[in-house]
Amino acid sequence: MSVRRYLALTGGVGGAKLGLGLAQRLGPGELAFLVNTGDDFEHLGLHVSPDLDTLMYTLSGLSNPETGWGRAGESWQFIESFTALGGEGWFNLGDRDLAIHVRRTQRLREGASLSVVTRELNAALGVTHPIFPMSDAPVPTRVLTADGPLMFQHYFVRERCAPAVTGFEFHGAAAARLVPAAADWLADPALAGIVLCPSNPYVSVDPVLAVPGVRAALAATRAPVVAVSPIVAGLAIKGPTAKMMAELGVPNTAVAVAAHYRELLDGFIVDDSDAHLAAEIEALGIATIAAPTVMVTLADRTRLADIAIRFIQDLESSR
Amino acid sequence: MSVRRYLALTGGVGGAKLGLGLAQRLGPGELAFLVNTGDDFEHLGLHVSPDLDTLMYTLSGLSNPETGWGRAGESWQFIESFTALGGEGWFNLGDRDLAIHVRRTQRLREGASLSVVTRELNAALGVTHPIFPMSDAPVPTRVLTADGPLMFQHYFVRERCAPAVTGFEFHGAAAARLVPAAADWLADPALAGIVLCPSNPYVSVDPVLAVPGVRAALAATRAPVVAVSPIVAGLAIKGPTAKMMAELGVPNTAVAVAAHYRELLDGFIVDDSDAHLAAEIEALGIATIAAPTVMVTLADRTRLADIAIRFIQDLESSR
Repeated sequence: MSVRRYLALTGGVGGAKLGLGLAQRLGPGELAFLVNTGDDFEHLGLHVSPDLDTLMYTLSGLSNPETGWGRAGESWQFIESFTALGGEGWFNLGDRDLAIHVRRTQRLREGASLSVVTRELNAALGVTHPIFPMSDAPVPTRVLTADGPLMFQHYFVRERCAPAVTGFEFHGAAAARLVPAAADWLADPALAGIVLCPSNPYVSVDPVLAVPGVRAALAATRAPVVAVSPIVAGLAIKGPTAKMMAELGVPNTAVAVAAHYRELLDGFIVDDSDAHLAAEIEALGIATIAAPTVMVTLADRTRLADIAIRFIQDLESSR
Repeated sequence: MSVRRYLALTGGVGGAKLGLGLAQRLGPGELAFLVNTGDDFEHLGLHVSPDLDTLMYTLSGLSNPETGWGRAGESWQFIESFTALGGEGWFNLGDRDLAIHVRRTQRLREGASLSVVTRELNAALGVTHPIFPMSDAPVPTRVLTADGPLMFQHYFVRERCAPAVTGFEFHGAAAARLVPAAADWLADPALAGIVLCPSNPYVSVDPVLAVPGVRAALAATRAPVVAVSPIVAGLAIKGPTAKMMAELGVPNTAVAVAAHYRELLDGFIVDDSDAHLAAEIEALGIATIAAPTVMVTLADRTRLADIAIRFIQDLESSR
């Protein structure tokens, strides 16, 4: 049988959990990642790519298992010294993590694209699955709030998601270009399935979908597109998804997430605790299954990956 | 009695030892430093000012007492991670030290001058004596060697001073401008003395003297100009001074150092072990005394500072 290829769209911590499960089951020729870079920002003169780094640290086994972000065995001498100098300390930069930002910034200044630098960094850390930033050009997410627009990291980290959101802007998205290797992967006849990881729909997945060509490619592909709900029993496992939905006047339910992606989805995976919502989502025309989606252990991650892969295969064979 | 002001010209480790001694004896209104920035360079996208930092760490009590450079209690997580990514590791950057470089670079990019940033950083670390970089504009030292020209840090750190030197260039010196606060200090009627610290004459003091106006100000001032020999019994206490002198065909003696500065000096301090050379230096028209110049303890530093200050006062009163 010829190779079957999968593409996972993901943001940071939540999505990377399933990403790790998928990477345990699918080899580097079978699985690639398309990653949100709307969170990227220039900080202290450094180009920081939080979601790319979270996925890289997760796949390389270097991630901090307690926080889900940053590196295991991290130390904080730099940021302590930096804030003692009067520097901004709201964005925590570990000493080891800093090496990534300095190296990325250095290579970008030398003229390398973000795709190339991402490949180099991942290769150096032993990550062999292709990881594509959604765009080589910056497409910074702006969170529109009752207090005015905020740069994503200002909203997310500095303001700890406190301001009520009213909307989002993906600045420069219209002029952005999907990185060619990702476009090739999407157009590959071997493409067997696409997984929208359980990331925040508004600020992790939508920025990727806002890059010209992505939404069209997902609509056009014969491969099933499956999403895993980031909302479980009305709560977000990680991050401000549920809070945002409430502020936007959207019910904070798995149904609303499915509806949000409606025209793109062939299948949807809700948590077992939301199994009673399956019929409502099926009514939207989306095949729905329930599964244990709360991932604590590595076994949880691979089990959910197995379920998502099997779901995709079932959707394909039932056509 | 009105205030008497002193100016110390210095490079890094060797000069900063005497600088600390002087700072123990003279208050912030009485003592300022004019510091070599010829060693400054852009590394990993960061503006690094080795001599300014060595003096700052020394005066603030944060310096590493074992190395004489860098910070006490330093850790190396950043540089270990950075080299693991394939990044350059020849210039060692400690995690705490990195905070200085990131902050300096950030402030320079914001448009602050090196003088202003130097003042801010020193203030943050509790250093109250004025510290003037020799120039706000870069005046990078190039070491001319048998193997071709080298940027100073490439010669000094990366190549460990191995190539034989044939000369030096202070790139951009002719167009540089002495920082105004230093020019004011030099022109102050209260100026009572100038000390050339026991730094390398070629690559620590000469770059400062190459900034337009410095040499003329030293020649014109009524205040005595005194140097402390960095060469003791034909050896350099620290760094490549003696090696350079040999390669340049200059005898590696305190006499040759005095001769190098001849037209600027009123007085010269040799080490006790070189007391027998005093007559030879006096013959150059430079008053000479012998003193214990090898500084190991803080007491050594303050004792030499006391001797230098008294020497200046003696030279002034003997006029």
